[in-house]
Amino acid sequence: MNAIPQLPPENVFDWLDTEAEKRADAGLVRRLRARPAQADELDLAGNDYLGLARDKRVVGAAAAAAMRWGAGATGSRLVTGSTELHAELELELARFCGAQAALVFSSGFAANLGAVTALSGAESAIVTDKYIHASLIEGCRLSRADVAAVAHATPSAIQHALSTRRKPRALVVTDSVFSVDGDLAPLGELAEICRGAGAALLVDDAHGFGVLGEGGRGAVHAAGLSASPDVVTTVTLSKSLGAQGGAVIGPRRVIKHLVDTARSFIFDTALAPASVAAALTALNVLKADPSLPTKVTDNAGNIAMQLKAAGLRASLPDAAVISVQAPSAEAAVTWAESCADQGIRVGCFRPPSVPDGISRLRLTARADLTEADVDRAVKVITATAPRGAAA
Amino acid sequence: MNAIPQLPPENVFDWLDTEAEKRADAGLVRRLRARPAQADELDLAGNDYLGLARDKRVVGAAAAAAMRWGAGATGSRLVTGSTELHAELELELARFCGAQAALVFSSGFAANLGAVTALSGAESAIVTDKYIHASLIEGCRLSRADVAAVAHATPSAIQHALSTRRKPRALVVTDSVFSVDGDLAPLGELAEICRGAGAALLVDDAHGFGVLGEGGRGAVHAAGLSASPDVVTTVTLSKSLGAQGGAVIGPRRVIKHLVDTARSFIFDTALAPASVAAALTALNVLKADPSLPTKVTDNAGNIAMQLKAAGLRASLPDAAVISVQAPSAEAAVTWAESCADQGIRVGCFRPPSVPDGISRLRLTARADLTEADVDRAVKVITATAPRGAAA
Ligand SMILES: Cc1ncc(COP(=O)(O)O)c(C=O)c1O
Ligand SMILES: Cc1ncc(COP(=O)(O)O)c(C=O)c1O
Repeated sequence: MNAIPQLPPENVFDWLDTEAEKRADAGLVRRLRARPAQADELDLAGNDYLGLARDKRVVGAAAAAAMRWGAGATGSRLVTGSTELHAELELELARFCGAQAALVFSSGFAANLGAVTALSGAESAIVTDKYIHASLIEGCRLSRADVAAVAHATPSAIQHALSTRRKPRALVVTDSVFSVDGDLAPLGELAEICRGAGAALLVDDAHGFGVLGEGGRGAVHAAGLSASPDVVTTVTLSKSLGAQGGAVIGPRRVIKHLVDTARSFIFDTALAPASVAAALTALNVLKADPSLPTKVTDNAGNIAMQLKAAGLRASLPDAAVISVQAPSAEAAVTWAESCADQGIRVGCFRPPSVPDGISRLRLTARADLTEADVDRAVKVITATAPRGAAA
Repeated sequence: MNAIPQLPPENVFDWLDTEAEKRADAGLVRRLRARPAQADELDLAGNDYLGLARDKRVVGAAAAAAMRWGAGATGSRLVTGSTELHAELELELARFCGAQAALVFSSGFAANLGAVTALSGAESAIVTDKYIHASLIEGCRLSRADVAAVAHATPSAIQHALSTRRKPRALVVTDSVFSVDGDLAPLGELAEICRGAGAALLVDDAHGFGVLGEGGRGAVHAAGLSASPDVVTTVTLSKSLGAQGGAVIGPRRVIKHLVDTARSFIFDTALAPASVAAALTALNVLKADPSLPTKVTDNAGNIAMQLKAAGLRASLPDAAVISVQAPSAEAAVTWAESCADQGIRVGCFRPPSVPDGISRLRLTARADLTEADVDRAVKVITATAPRGAAA
C-alpha cells in the first residue's frame, strides 16, 4: 500500500521532534527539575496540604512497614498483594467517611479509572463537568459509555444531559474541588439532580478529603452524601495524607463490584506497604487533630485575599488551591521561575493541564504555613508579577 | 424520554447485584484475602522473582528514604514530585539496559498507558499480539489509533496487519514474556518486521526484566534491541525489583516526548521515595550478583518439568512464569485452595484474566527457592490436581 513509508529505524521517531518543535514554539516545553531532600525554598506547589508527608509519625510508620512487610506488595491485590495493612486502611477510610466500604488502589489515577469504567459501560450514559481531572476523563474514554461533558459548574447542563440521554443507566462524574482553580462543585444540587433522573453520582474528592468537612472528612461528607446508596467517592492518599495511592469509598456492593471488574485494580500490583502504613498513620494524625483542615483553608483564604488586594487575578479558594491567572504561557513560566529564584516554589499550569486554556500559577496552602511564610509568599508573587497579570 | 427510569436512590446500583449473580453462576467471584506479615506458606504466586522484596538492603533503603525524603512525593513529577532519587533511578535503569534514557511512573500500568498513548494517536496504526497485558490494552483503547489485535505469537499476522494498515505511522506492541503462560515473544523477528514496515516496536518487559538476558538486563537487551532507535521498553519495578512503580526506557527523544505528553505521567503523583529507593537498591543488588536471574529460570524449568512428568498440562517456561491448565474455573479455584491448605500459595487465573478463556494455576519461580521447596510444591500441586487436569 502507498500509505506505508520506507523509514530507516533511526527515523521512525522523527515525528516526535516535529511535535517537540511545535510545543517549543507555543511555549509548552516541560522540564523535570529534580529537587534535593532538603530544599530551603517555601513550597506552595505541592499537595501535602496537612504537612504530613514529612511528619515524624508518618515517615516512621512508612519505614517500619517497609521493614516488616517488605518493600513491595509482590503481586496484585487478588493474588498476593493484599495484606492486613491494606484491609485496615480500607476499614478506617470507610469508617472515617461514614461509608460502608473502601478499596485501595495504587494511585488516585487508578482509583478513578477503575471507578468510572466499572460503574458505567456500554449500557450507560456518563455526564461530566468538562473540567474534571484527566484521570476521570481517561476513565470516561475507556468506559464505552455515551459520554457528555457539559459546561463547568452548571447543574442545569448536567440535568439537561441526563434528561436527554439515550441509555437508561447513568453516572454523573465530577471533581469536588476542581484541581486547577480550586472551586467547589455544588454537590448537594448535583445529588438532587441525579436522584430526579435515576443516576448515580461519582465524586473525586482528591482535593476535598482532609481539607473540607467535619475534621477533614471531605466535601462528600460535608454535603451529607457519604452514606448515600447512590453516591461513590474517590480519594487520593497522595495529597492530604502525604503518601501515595488512591481509594474508592462507597456502598459495599460497589466495592465488591470493583474487586471483580475494575481492570486498574485487578491488573496492577498492590500499593506498597510503606505507602499504606503512611496513609493509615496520617489518617490517625488527622483524627487526633481535627483542627488541621481549618488551618489549611484559613491560610489559603489569607493568601488569596492578599493577592487579590494587590490587584492579581486570584481565585477565591473553597479549599487549599488558589489559581492566579497569567497573561500567557511564557509569562506564566517566567513568573514561576522568578518566584523560585526568590525562594518560593509555585506551580505553573499551562495547556494541556488547564481546561480553559488560560495559563496560570497554581498555589496551594498547607496547614503548617506560618504568617511570615504567607507574607513572604504574597510579597514575592506580587513583586514578580508580569505586565498584564493585574485584573 | 422513555429511556429514563424513575429509580429510588437505593436501587440505582441494583444492576451490580444482577451482574454479581451472573459471575457467581459462572464461578467467577473474587475474594480479597488479607495476608499477615509473616506467612508460613510457600509463595509460588507473587512476582518477587529475585526474592528482593524482603531483602534487608532493599527494605533498609526504603525505610531510610521515607525518613529522609518523606512518605510521599507531594506532587506530580512536573510540579514537586521529582527528587534526585527519581533522577538517579532513571539514570541507572537506562545505563543498566544500555538505553539513552528512562522515565519512572507510579506503576507499570501507568507506564504502559503513557507509552502506548504518547507513541501513537489518531495518525497511527497500532498492531498488537492479542494476549498483551491489560494495561497495554487500556493504552490502545485510549490511543485513538487504528488498533489491530492479531493472533498470539504469530509474526506473520503482525506483518500482515502492518502492511495493510491505513495510517502511515505504526507502533507494534507486545509483552516480552506473556504474563499468563510465561511464553516469550519472538522479539528479534518482530523488530525485523517493524523495520521492513517503518514501524516502531514497544515491548513490555515486565516479566523479562531481572530474569532474562545478561545479568537480568531483560528480554529486549537479550534480543540486542535495547539501544535501538526504534524500540521502546517498559518495565515494572514491582516484580524483579521487589518494589512498586514502572518505567519507560528508550531513546532520549521518546522520553522527552513522554514528559510533555503522557497523561498518566503528567496527571499523577510521583512514585513515593521509599519505592524509588527500594528499586534502586534492588537494581544494585542485581548488578552485584548477576547469577540471580539464572536461579529463577532454573527453578522455573525444574518445577515445570516435574509437573509435566506427573502428567499435568504445564507450560514450559521461558522465564519465571509457569501456567498449569485446569479443567474449569471452579476446578481451578478448588485446586488453588487445596494447595493453600497444604501450605503452597499458587495463583489462580480465570476469565477475564486469561486471554484464551482457559482457567489455570499460575506459578512463579523465585531465585531463593530451595530444592526442598520445589519438591514440596510439585508434590502438593500434583496430589491436589482435579480430575481432568492431566494432559
Ligand atoms: C482531582 C484529582 N484526581 C485524581 C488525581 C490523581 O491522584 P494520584 O496523583 O494519587 O494518582 C489528582 C492528582 O494527581 C487530582 O488532582
Ligand atoms: C505484563 C505486565 N505488564 C504490566 C504490569 C503492570 O505493572 P504494575 O503492577 O507495576 O502496575 C503487569 C503486572 O502487574 C504485567 O504482568
